[in-house]
Amino acid sequence: MKNKTVNLLDQARAITKYWSPKVVGEVDDSYLKVAKVKGEFTWHDHEEDELFMVLDGRLKIEMEGQTIQLQAGEVYVVPKGVKHKPLAVDECLIMLFEKKTTLHTGKTSTALTKDISEQL
Amino acid sequence: MKNKTVNLLDQARAITKYWSPKVVGEVDDSYLKVAKVKGEFTWHDHEEDELFMVLDGRLKIEMEGQTIQLQAGEVYVVPKGVKHKPLAVDECLIMLFEKKTTLHTGKTSTALTKDISEQL
Repeated sequence: MKNKTVNLLDQARAITKYWSPKVVGEVDDSYLKVAKVKGEFTWHDHEEDELFMVLDGRLKIEMEGQTIQLQAGEVYVVPKGVKHKPLAVDECLIMLFEKKTTLHTGKTSTALTKDISEQL
Repeated sequence: MKNKTVNLLDQARAITKYWSPKVVGEVDDSYLKVAKVKGEFTWHDHEEDELFMVLDGRLKIEMEGQTIQLQAGEVYVVPKGVKHKPLAVDECLIMLFEKKTTLHTGKTSTALTKDISEQL
């Protein structure tokens, strides 16, 4: 995952399943991932911070008390412990940056949940 | 640095000095930075991995034995301990992701070196 050039949009476009992140890089104890999303994800939180960046399209992140909207080139870090629900009306390509230990849907397990082995 | 939306290009464009990264976000023990670069930086290495992403323009990273070239949307992780020299023929805007402990020019101190307090 090091020593290679990664085109984020190409990697994200090649994904065939929504809400199924793919690891495309590692930086020490963190993973860089891309995902293709559409519709609503599940409410969850993590024990670590989670960085979202929109590569193409628009992403909403609902949190308790606020909803933020991101467009291409915009970044938002959901702090650890903050419940959030990402959603996208239309198909959206995103980049994620998070610890290798971060669980896809936190302690919540849903039909959408992907183990890290499914993201590599 | 959390709980706010950051437009990476806007942040990078607003920088007035080349090779002077600006912290625009934090994810646990790592910083997200943007920088405006042109010309040659100095040879150095870090005790941690360092992620480069080009936001606009073209960046070269010279390493011992190879040189890679990145364009907008492309990412490269320079592994810890690998000596590298970033350079850009024309002005280029980049994003960096690295540990909070990562030193700007590693153990090498040059006229370009910025302490972390100058990046916040």
